[in-house]
Amino acid sequence: MTVPTVEAVCSAWGQLRSEQPLVQCLTNVVVAGWTANVLLAARAAPVMVDNPFEAGDCARHASATLVNLGTPQQATADGMREAVRARQATGQGWVLDPVAVGVLGWRTELAHELAAIAPPSLVRGNASEIAALAPESAGAPDSGRGVDATTTPEAVLPEARALAAQWGSVVAVSGETDHVVSPDGEVVRLRHGHPWLTRVTGSGCALGALAAGCAAVSDPFTGAVAATAGLTLAAEDAARGAGGPGSFAPALLDALDQLGPDAMAERLVLTTGEG
Amino acid sequence: MTVPTVEAVCSAWGQLRSEQPLVQCLTNVVVAGWTANVLLAARAAPVMVDNPFEAGDCARHASATLVNLGTPQQATADGMREAVRARQATGQGWVLDPVAVGVLGWRTELAHELAAIAPPSLVRGNASEIAALAPESAGAPDSGRGVDATTTPEAVLPEARALAAQWGSVVAVSGETDHVVSPDGEVVRLRHGHPWLTRVTGSGCALGALAAGCAAVSDPFTGAVAATAGLTLAAEDAARGAGGPGSFAPALLDALDQLGPDAMAERLVLTTGEG
Amino acid sequence: MTVPTVEAVCSAWGQLRSEQPLVQCLTNVVVAGWTANVLLAARAAPVMVDNPFEAGDCARHASATLVNLGTPQQATADGMREAVRARQATGQGWVLDPVAVGVLGWRTELAHELAAIAPPSLVRGNASEIAALAPESAGAPDSGRGVDATTTPEAVLPEARALAAQWGSVVAVSGETDHVVSPDGEVVRLRHGHPWLTRVTGSGCALGALAAGCAAVSDPFTGAVAATAGLTLAAEDAARGAGGPGSFAPALLDALDQLGPDAMAERLVLTTGEG
Repeated sequence: MTVPTVEAVCSAWGQLRSEQPLVQCLTNVVVAGWTANVLLAARAAPVMVDNPFEAGDCARHASATLVNLGTPQQATADGMREAVRARQATGQGWVLDPVAVGVLGWRTELAHELAAIAPPSLVRGNASEIAALAPESAGAPDSGRGVDATTTPEAVLPEARALAAQWGSVVAVSGETDHVVSPDGEVVRLRHGHPWLTRVTGSGCALGALAAGCAAVSDPFTGAVAATAGLTLAAEDAARGAGGPGSFAPALLDALDQLGPDAMAERLVLTTGEG
Repeated sequence: MTVPTVEAVCSAWGQLRSEQPLVQCLTNVVVAGWTANVLLAARAAPVMVDNPFEAGDCARHASATLVNLGTPQQATADGMREAVRARQATGQGWVLDPVAVGVLGWRTELAHELAAIAPPSLVRGNASEIAALAPESAGAPDSGRGVDATTTPEAVLPEARALAAQWGSVVAVSGETDHVVSPDGEVVRLRHGHPWLTRVTGSGCALGALAAGCAAVSDPFTGAVAATAGLTLAAEDAARGAGGPGSFAPALLDALDQLGPDAMAERLVLTTGEG
Repeated sequence: MTVPTVEAVCSAWGQLRSEQPLVQCLTNVVVAGWTANVLLAARAAPVMVDNPFEAGDCARHASATLVNLGTPQQATADGMREAVRARQATGQGWVLDPVAVGVLGWRTELAHELAAIAPPSLVRGNASEIAALAPESAGAPDSGRGVDATTTPEAVLPEARALAAQWGSVVAVSGETDHVVSPDGEVVRLRHGHPWLTRVTGSGCALGALAAGCAAVSDPFTGAVAATAGLTLAAEDAARGAGGPGSFAPALLDALDQLGPDAMAERLVLTTGEG
């Protein structure tokens, strides 16, 4: 995958809005409604089918499938297995959001079990989660505080590259400076956003869902960058009129709705290479 | 059931606000919080009991029971079975929201299994879902895109009438022009609302819950029309001050809170008969 | 536990903001997202781990564990058992929010089963729920309407004291006048808040989560009062600018974010003793 240009990224964002891909979300109960609303604001079509009897069938027909490990249960874990098998069988990729992997044992095993069926085409997590998934750290609990990262994307870049290479996946590491790493080790950095994103539950989870949608209309590298650009630029717009993290959330949906590819092109700054 | 007049519809809406019926919702995890807030805004009392150990007991005592098939799991499906059996045993009706029925197999079977215990007194769905449930189409997957309708209420009116006749149910088909069909084939049409309703996850699901509440204080035909009137008129009010689908959602709750039966009577337009 | 002063209460509120304790929430699917957002607005760190495979491990390391019985299922009930066992084993307290206990049988048994492992250090409920848990009433369904209280904190003060004494727990009874009762029978009353709190689903549930967080940085008596003070004073602020229960909810998060311990100290009125 070549490093995406600003033009390619904005084009993917525009295609998300015009093609409105079906994004299947097997996600956690905390953020399910919010995730669906973020996708709808960006004009994608969420489908939240996560039971084991239908998840595979849905995955076969969806444009994208997101597996988010926020609140797995036995039944939804079975749904995730079915969905990943169906994506593998039909030669389609899937997106992994490894919430709290490395801190909690069962979901860490589940993440590796799903990746053994077929590695995800795209992984979106915070620095602690990515470090925990990386080959060197596999199985070793890190010092993460559950869903909060205790390290930075910069600090875990070697681990992100190792994971991307091992799985052949694009790895998006969220943080103050978002890093997106290709299987070849190329890096795109974005420094947009607002601190209130960390004060709304499921900002990262919603980013994973948007990335799944954008990847479906482009490729995982371009898609991960486009989703990060869309969410963080919209966050800048939303923060301007909001009075706190509460009013910021609906304003973020309004801003996502309004952010077209041209407005993105005017403001988006991507940094590539070492630096 | 006779075709409800504007007076009867507004009266049902007013009674929802004054009687505050207990509405049991066995609904999906994506919209559960939103549904409860919509019911509370309209002054109803939501009770979200959906486990198989208590769902039947709750259904016996609730004023209304809504079964929404958005994210069924084995456990919640068992809860739905218990709830419908309890409503049947106590001679009370129930409301079915057949989310994505026709597209996904397991829930389609579940819908028919529940209807075999006792047909719902009221069904609320989009055009694709209603067409999939209708006798002619039973078991045949339609071309729906999951939760989105790919056809219109007008186009599936024959199927809606067939379903209403077969089950003896009122059938509410949501779309740009909402259609409510009685078991006898009478039709009431409403052309209120706003496109942002389709950009908030669970608008339709919340309509099903409101319809359950309104039917509990009137009859299913009047109740389905009253709920549709309430939600779509409130949507018109909410859209006026909102900046997008994000700020539209809380504004919709404010508007539902403020919309009394008199304000409804001033603006509500019902069309009946052919045309 | 001594009766907390205004200073002690405001200090606990300030410590919640600065220490940002990890609050594990085993809560219901209706309010999970809202609860996480309330905790984040108050600067606490929510962790919503509720599956039986990880709930115990999470409970061992969390600063606080909340068990809310709003929508229990077999799997999440098993998670609650594991979490309470882990808190007991590590000598840490836990917080019970007995939603609809007394009205529904299975969860009433579950509440008593959990308390038999280790009584909660803090119970937060409405008057009907507290009365149902109290020794005199154990097992007898009360006249509650599910999640709504049909009696007042004043009326159930004897039951609250009996429950507090039996379990050695702090008991917080929510209502128009909030009552917090110590194991010794001391009472603190707060008369802040706004009626719209009853029109947003999960206000009480979020109070339970805040109380868990505040108790983790002080003691259960001080913590329950601090959480009640924080939520109800923020509600007064939020109601000023809101147009209804819909816009009130995000405004409440903004107000929680802005309410520091000094502002709390200026306005908080605590009443103690009889009267």
